[in-house]
Amino acid sequence: MSTQDTRPDDTRFDPTKTYKAAVIGAGSGGLTVAIGLAGFGHDIALIEAGAIGGDCTNVGCIPSKALLHAAHAGVDDPFGHVRALRDDLNRREDDEMVEHDQIHLVRGRGKLTAPDGDVHVVEVTDTDGSVVLVRAEHVAVATGAVPVQFPIDGLDADRLLTNENLFDLREVPPTTVMVGGGPISLEMATAFRDLGGAVHIVELADRVMGNDDPLVSTTIQAALEARGVEFHIGTSIERFEGTTAHLANGTTIDDVDKVLLAIGRRPRLDGLGLHDAGVESTSHGIVADSWGKTSVDNVWAVGDVTGNTATTHGANSIARRTIRAIALPIPTVGGPRVQANAVYSRPEIASVGLSMDELAAYPTSGRKRYEVQLADIDRGYTDGVEHGVVMVDVERFTGKILRAAIVAPAAAEMIGMFTLMIDHGIGLRKVFGQVHPYPSYSQAIGKLADDFAGETYRSLPREWLGMARGKLTKRFA
Amino acid sequence: MSTQDTRPDDTRFDPTKTYKAAVIGAGSGGLTVAIGLAGFGHDIALIEAGAIGGDCTNVGCIPSKALLHAAHAGVDDPFGHVRALRDDLNRREDDEMVEHDQIHLVRGRGKLTAPDGDVHVVEVTDTDGSVVLVRAEHVAVATGAVPVQFPIDGLDADRLLTNENLFDLREVPPTTVMVGGGPISLEMATAFRDLGGAVHIVELADRVMGNDDPLVSTTIQAALEARGVEFHIGTSIERFEGTTAHLANGTTIDDVDKVLLAIGRRPRLDGLGLHDAGVESTSHGIVADSWGKTSVDNVWAVGDVTGNTATTHGANSIARRTIRAIALPIPTVGGPRVQANAVYSRPEIASVGLSMDELAAYPTSGRKRYEVQLADIDRGYTDGVEHGVVMVDVERFTGKILRAAIVAPAAAEMIGMFTLMIDHGIGLRKVFGQVHPYPSYSQAIGKLADDFAGETYRSLPREWLGMARGKLTKRFA
Repeated sequence: MSTQDTRPDDTRFDPTKTYKAAVIGAGSGGLTVAIGLAGFGHDIALIEAGAIGGDCTNVGCIPSKALLHAAHAGVDDPFGHVRALRDDLNRREDDEMVEHDQIHLVRGRGKLTAPDGDVHVVEVTDTDGSVVLVRAEHVAVATGAVPVQFPIDGLDADRLLTNENLFDLREVPPTTVMVGGGPISLEMATAFRDLGGAVHIVELADRVMGNDDPLVSTTIQAALEARGVEFHIGTSIERFEGTTAHLANGTTIDDVDKVLLAIGRRPRLDGLGLHDAGVESTSHGIVADSWGKTSVDNVWAVGDVTGNTATTHGANSIARRTIRAIALPIPTVGGPRVQANAVYSRPEIASVGLSMDELAAYPTSGRKRYEVQLADIDRGYTDGVEHGVVMVDVERFTGKILRAAIVAPAAAEMIGMFTLMIDHGIGLRKVFGQVHPYPSYSQAIGKLADDFAGETYRSLPREWLGMARGKLTKRFA
Repeated sequence: MSTQDTRPDDTRFDPTKTYKAAVIGAGSGGLTVAIGLAGFGHDIALIEAGAIGGDCTNVGCIPSKALLHAAHAGVDDPFGHVRALRDDLNRREDDEMVEHDQIHLVRGRGKLTAPDGDVHVVEVTDTDGSVVLVRAEHVAVATGAVPVQFPIDGLDADRLLTNENLFDLREVPPTTVMVGGGPISLEMATAFRDLGGAVHIVELADRVMGNDDPLVSTTIQAALEARGVEFHIGTSIERFEGTTAHLANGTTIDDVDKVLLAIGRRPRLDGLGLHDAGVESTSHGIVADSWGKTSVDNVWAVGDVTGNTATTHGANSIARRTIRAIALPIPTVGGPRVQANAVYSRPEIASVGLSMDELAAYPTSGRKRYEVQLADIDRGYTDGVEHGVVMVDVERFTGKILRAAIVAPAAAEMIGMFTLMIDHGIGLRKVFGQVHPYPSYSQAIGKLADDFAGETYRSLPREWLGMARGKLTKRFA
């Protein structure tokens, strides 16, 4: 972790006490569990070797969104501004945890299998080698993830960036190559271009945002190309010669200052003693259900370490359920809420509902697809939007949302309407006639509903049969 | 009308024919009715003396949003850019109407009471004094509104702006005084400041956005003050001496180049022959229900001329219902949809639900108020938002939305979630747990739901009683 470690002392930890829960990791998931359980009156031991706040506060959402804003708004010394904001938040979260009456900080790395074999005793080893044992009724593992790295032939180590050292930059590199076409690259390409840097994105697959709709991929690529980002798709960096990147497709990129590796993240499982403790895990992370429950009683896992989610809101959502599962005798019944994802590139990208694989498995006879280009609605016209779109895949007849995706200036704010529709089973048929403010981008959603209604009402029996056939096919598949 | 009048010829109008409908006015409401009825296969006579597209296309939403975008994006010659966009759209709408097989254009001013006394024969007088009669089964009046004007002592006429000549400017005036603190002033203050002009807003009432929540007023004023707009509240311009405005409170504003009058709009009723035709109207406009039905059978009124709405989406929404009422033997049952309003200042303002008067009449025992400042959510922190807020007034226990208002960068896109909640009777209690993308501004809505749930679950019986008492008080009020 490249951020400063303020390492506040917390002298209140009591090694003889049995805490309600030992929480390993003070990132988004761990903090939510700790603060939530403390709110129910429980004493919590919070184990953290690095900075309070985890990736989100220190090397993730917070500094990245602050950089996007600073770059766009023309703030002086944008990287310094971002570090100041981050360090201030980090200090406040540190203070809050140190001063919290019911959360006792323990500095060091936690390991589940304590010497006496009880997985609910966590062995914590600090950087100086000192060891303490934390006893608890419950253990919540929330150690997060780390960026996947790999060596690039001929590349100087000091040219290599990941999200963990990117925010230590003093200024935007004149030329940056970003490896991977996912959210981190798209967001940082947006910010670096705003700051005047040249940006190349190299993606091995045949498109960026490979887990999303292909129309999302082509739309965001076109939008960023229009802003000067260069894309190298279906290829990879073979080697560097000096500052020249040689790609597998024969292209060269000269005068490269920095290479941002953003090809994915892997769960931080090392040293947790999971295997000995009997906690099941795969290469994607600890196996946990939507309450955070693992294969071992009273051992929970939330956030990136599970591989179920890679977002702060995903970690929070599961963590809130874990709190209820631990604190309430009968946790409120209820399925997990659908989780939208957002990328804060400009335009933004957001999606919600079935994954592309789940959608592909949904019988084609029972679903339909609608798309509205922002250029075809009035706000797209006034604002000169060439690359932006709202797309939905819906159940026929009812118009229930299977999956929705948006590429638009405020996609992260618009997606909530689809989230709400999915959570409450409201289809396009029922929102037909909803009045969206003129001229908002959300009118594209109104147009989707119009298109759906027009097509459906022209042939109700056929649409009803299509829906029914889809449901049957799905049931007996 | 200051815009060019391309005056396309339409030779297809047939004076011997009885049209399904004569639509007077080719603005947002009239075009919607005409195109919608034509879509059902009906022949329509569309009567317009000015430019196709009405205020929205020519002197309203379209040029104002285009100017806001051009000013913010730093487009060269922003006013020229706006005129080019507007004229292009105007030409396309003209062409569309001229070429439309089932919509026959008639140029001139329409009057309901034709010489033979049948209100369904419309007398159309063109600028050259020529008169034609249009016979139709239905007449839809959609003549819109005009800005309220009043004389200012000592002010040169060539310094006076309204929305009707504002977009003819060649560049931003160095100093503009805007009279009235409503949407037009707030939007144009945003654009003019972006273009480097000095802006003063003079509002006679004790706050801007007087029809909205007082917290909206203070928030948007503070946000615009931070961007350099000067507010003069609770006062008015008494007189001009040369280029100096003297306000009633003793303040003077020197070197004023332009004065934008934006104190309201009045319905365009003159010359329609409403009284003789027996169509009821007040100073607010033609009296019409939520289907556009007036006091005379088969005479309809939609849009600004009714005083029921002053927005394009409001006109469209009613017009869509009018189409059904005219074209379908049994119009689909269903109440009117709730209409959100939006102002595209920066930050934006949006609201939906009860009016402030209706809210005040709702029993206080049955409702509660929640507010979340954007500065208190993470995106507000990363983006340095000091002035922004989401507020709701809700029914106790259920959290059903009585009224919601937002001041935020993408308020016009966020408000749709509240619109959807109102249309479908979904309260804060049911959206508790909805996952909003991190870190979006919409997380403020999640926090509202958390605050509501925390308070409600701590005292379910009291909240239930409060709701019940509110409902009873309301019923017997």
